[in-house]
Amino acid sequence: MPNAQAGDLALLYGPDGKRFLIRLQPGEVLHTHRGMIPHDALIGTPLGRTVYTHLDMPFLALEPSLHDLLLKLRRASQIMYPKDIGYVLLKLNISSGKRVIEAGSGSGAMTIALANAIRPHGCVVSYEVRPDMLSLARKNVDSLGLLPYVDFKLRDIAAGFDETDVDACFLDLREPWEYLEQVRQAVKPGGFFGALVPTANQVIDTLTGLQRLGFGAIEVEELLLRPYKPVPGRLRPVDRIVAHTGYLIFARTPTLGEATLPAEGAPLANAVTIPDEPLQPESESDPPGT
Amino acid sequence: MPNAQAGDLALLYGPDGKRFLIRLQPGEVLHTHRGMIPHDALIGTPLGRTVYTHLDMPFLALEPSLHDLLLKLRRASQIMYPKDIGYVLLKLNISSGKRVIEAGSGSGAMTIALANAIRPHGCVVSYEVRPDMLSLARKNVDSLGLLPYVDFKLRDIAAGFDETDVDACFLDLREPWEYLEQVRQAVKPGGFFGALVPTANQVIDTLTGLQRLGFGAIEVEELLLRPYKPVPGRLRPVDRIVAHTGYLIFARTPTLGEATLPAEGAPLANAVTIPDEPLQPESESDPPGT
Amino acid sequence: MPNAQAGDLALLYGPDGKRFLIRLQPGEVLHTHRGMIPHDALIGTPLGRTVYTHLDMPFLALEPSLHDLLLKLRRASQIMYPKDIGYVLLKLNISSGKRVIEAGSGSGAMTIALANAIRPHGCVVSYEVRPDMLSLARKNVDSLGLLPYVDFKLRDIAAGFDETDVDACFLDLREPWEYLEQVRQAVKPGGFFGALVPTANQVIDTLTGLQRLGFGAIEVEELLLRPYKPVPGRLRPVDRIVAHTGYLIFARTPTLGEATLPAEGAPLANAVTIPDEPLQPESESDPPGT
Amino acid sequence: MPNAQAGDLALLYGPDGKRFLIRLQPGEVLHTHRGMIPHDALIGTPLGRTVYTHLDMPFLALEPSLHDLLLKLRRASQIMYPKDIGYVLLKLNISSGKRVIEAGSGSGAMTIALANAIRPHGCVVSYEVRPDMLSLARKNVDSLGLLPYVDFKLRDIAAGFDETDVDACFLDLREPWEYLEQVRQAVKPGGFFGALVPTANQVIDTLTGLQRLGFGAIEVEELLLRPYKPVPGRLRPVDRIVAHTGYLIFARTPTLGEATLPAEGAPLANAVTIPDEPLQPESESDPPGT
Repeated sequence: MPNAQAGDLALLYGPDGKRFLIRLQPGEVLHTHRGMIPHDALIGTPLGRTVYTHLDMPFLALEPSLHDLLLKLRRASQIMYPKDIGYVLLKLNISSGKRVIEAGSGSGAMTIALANAIRPHGCVVSYEVRPDMLSLARKNVDSLGLLPYVDFKLRDIAAGFDETDVDACFLDLREPWEYLEQVRQAVKPGGFFGALVPTANQVIDTLTGLQRLGFGAIEVEELLLRPYKPVPGRLRPVDRIVAHTGYLIFARTPTLGEATLPAEGAPLANAVTIPDEPLQPESESDPPGT
Repeated sequence: MPNAQAGDLALLYGPDGKRFLIRLQPGEVLHTHRGMIPHDALIGTPLGRTVYTHLDMPFLALEPSLHDLLLKLRRASQIMYPKDIGYVLLKLNISSGKRVIEAGSGSGAMTIALANAIRPHGCVVSYEVRPDMLSLARKNVDSLGLLPYVDFKLRDIAAGFDETDVDACFLDLREPWEYLEQVRQAVKPGGFFGALVPTANQVIDTLTGLQRLGFGAIEVEELLLRPYKPVPGRLRPVDRIVAHTGYLIFARTPTLGEATLPAEGAPLANAVTIPDEPLQPESESDPPGT
Repeated sequence: MPNAQAGDLALLYGPDGKRFLIRLQPGEVLHTHRGMIPHDALIGTPLGRTVYTHLDMPFLALEPSLHDLLLKLRRASQIMYPKDIGYVLLKLNISSGKRVIEAGSGSGAMTIALANAIRPHGCVVSYEVRPDMLSLARKNVDSLGLLPYVDFKLRDIAAGFDETDVDACFLDLREPWEYLEQVRQAVKPGGFFGALVPTANQVIDTLTGLQRLGFGAIEVEELLLRPYKPVPGRLRPVDRIVAHTGYLIFARTPTLGEATLPAEGAPLANAVTIPDEPLQPESESDPPGT
Repeated sequence: MPNAQAGDLALLYGPDGKRFLIRLQPGEVLHTHRGMIPHDALIGTPLGRTVYTHLDMPFLALEPSLHDLLLKLRRASQIMYPKDIGYVLLKLNISSGKRVIEAGSGSGAMTIALANAIRPHGCVVSYEVRPDMLSLARKNVDSLGLLPYVDFKLRDIAAGFDETDVDACFLDLREPWEYLEQVRQAVKPGGFFGALVPTANQVIDTLTGLQRLGFGAIEVEELLLRPYKPVPGRLRPVDRIVAHTGYLIFARTPTLGEATLPAEGAPLANAVTIPDEPLQPESESDPPGT
């Protein structure tokens, strides 16, 4: 475990679960509700320590996870939640080496997750039409050292993307159905498309657009995260939760060849059959549903 | 888009949403419920095509995503679901270059996701006590070309892990509370711990163990995935869903220094405060709760 | 506890949780998967007994609850689920003495619940356009002895309801927005309106209609029922559940006086404020929100 | 529609969805955030009117539903939520004429719902050990005119219930498993038992007690209520919801005869089979499972 240095990020986790994210700077002091901790008490020692405030209250000094960082992002808009981000990364097949485009950049939460996932050999191109948002997203991405993996473009994607044959595209904007033709031109045939929208009306409009343009394997899903109070003698869900972040829409871009497949039935078949039968990756034929 | 070759995996997506995963082999034929497709119709052409069965039914021939592959794994046990896997990867801070241990290997679903995420510079060590399971997991990992990133060990982890100072540890076994001391010795101070268990009783026992051994930042969460029928004129959730896969437990391993923090309040504070206030990564002080 | 008599309904609950609903008839025999039980073993003795099949397997012989009966109804259409029915009864303020109309009758599940709740002094008028459905609903209502409380009408409600000044109206049909003017004329000013629809599109159309006609206090809600395996040593949710029955829509019919209130904000304010502050029924002023 | 009179309850529903519950009194004035409304503007006219504040803001003056009243109860403890209450009434087979006991009285929310449901011919006996709570519950029940149907008893139920052969018993207290023998003696054989507890630990202990004492048809369930913003152009779930009120436990009291049935499988079989097949109340044999 290397020693923490000036400029590193550290997560201070208090006795009541409150979390403070700081960037270590010599001479600075963290003021918490339970007392002060000088940054110099952390610089030069490894993270993974218990430190004490001047009131002798213990805090865990930890390396922040990507999850911690996403939740603490400086934001000017609603950011995507980690529960959705982790799932989108899997559904869009994001991994080291992939070329991905997104719009808009927003506060950069998805940008950061994408950049972190395509490292060290892929790239992310992030389009944003608002200069202030792009500036914030760039700053957030830079603060985590991920700027080498991201190309920001201040641009209305109505004019199209510069890239072609990319692996995947994710849209987090108000009217994704307006840009599906642009997506089709930028993503390779059969590539991955995803979008997040908050309302059922937007889902309906996006589905209509996806079907019209011949996207395949269309899916709509929602993820609910339910935290529990981690008390062994009184285990129970927390009283109140975030009950809605958005609807996730996934599809494969139109393939070479003229045919379009109907979307209906796909997720249903999927949902019904997955857990019932052992499936085999090498098998010749693998019908999942009845 | 390169041409598909013998040995490549391809996902055939039928007109009613049925999915077939095949490994391309010259001379082989895929028999679907809508007719036959010879593998040779795919070999030598790029994926992302529409192909037709001998009954003239269209199928999308697609590159499978990691998500598709996980759902189609040859399995001898309940596998982890992608919804949980994507979230665990974020919570355990898994990314390129990390050193991770897991037990047990099971059918290898989590192993595959971990290996894919730490590429190309990290490593996964996967412990399994049953030879048949280890053999299946290894085969599944190998079939996706990820074996170079995984070290399988046929071992009861009651005897401890060989590794020390690893970044993270994930346990998917019946009694995780029996192995927390072993986890503490293998993971670096303040490192990431995760577990998945199906019953509330197991959650209670694991929480008790985590508190006793001084783990910090303890959280219990559950993810529910709700698919919708993607029909624009009749948008609605599907009738029946998988309503329970397991409870997710997260914690940070004990830190250097004697103090232990109470777990209660942590997730609650977290849940209450995230969306209410703009948070800033570089800020000196960042109290998330009220 | 009176003795069971010929013609009574009895619920037989098997050792594995299977349930059989029978109407006691002298000389008849119930054939279960665990053996036979002659009805005469039940007739003339009180329910609340354990009886044995000819294979010596124990069954509980129980008085069926309304909940049991609703789930066992002979049906020709999707019936409403008890979870929704119980909530609708409260929201529509149904109790002894109320006058209620519904359309359509369907298989009579909601009719039965309404009739049971308005007993002994109220009445239910149930409209249905299909003769076969009305016949089935009437038969189901009659089988539970509730026919004295229900007036069935074979009628398209496009022509309006016969009744005026009723307390509440519930619509369980495909296009509730087509009949809101008819509802307004039948229900007393400020009375209770409810509807159940399966798709988001129908919710949108119904909301549009409700706003246009000046309905107030509009709410849309969904109830999810999550059963657990009742095993004390392995408590956990069941794997698969019914995840969607329908969206519930509630409103108050237009009041005397011209003004219409905007719907937005109502349920939100409600959701936010209910549990946070003690509220008082007799208080002069009771602002629930912030 | 009769005219509202002094002493009646009225619900004032504001233009932004805020709700005020008042008891009409000559000369009194309701002060809202949007202006004042004199009670005399309502007394002597029917409810179901739009009234205006002195600032000319419209309010709906409505008859409150039982649902409205339950949410506005003067409370000294967490009350049961209407979503749970409506379901419990169905599961415990509560209707006009039934004899029901409950403990404790709490703030009287469940007492009110029970009393309203057994009217005009049944009775509720409500046990409470704390004089202040009993006093509040009685006051709340009285304020809705339901006192004739409720018999309050200031008593620790460890000493047993006075009643025997009642139809149903509901426990809303910390340790329901301590009183199951008392329940068995008070409720008729095969009668209805229900309980609400907030933690998984309490569920486990209650299940253990129910099995030991031979209760049958044991079920554990949870109800989640998800409100939507009722805006037709932007339909979406509200951001934050009450995610946990409690676990509901249901069982039938021990029957005459010695045998006890295993609980496992019951709810599962139930959950799996209900919607798949048409069921018939008069049928001789009705196996719901596979």
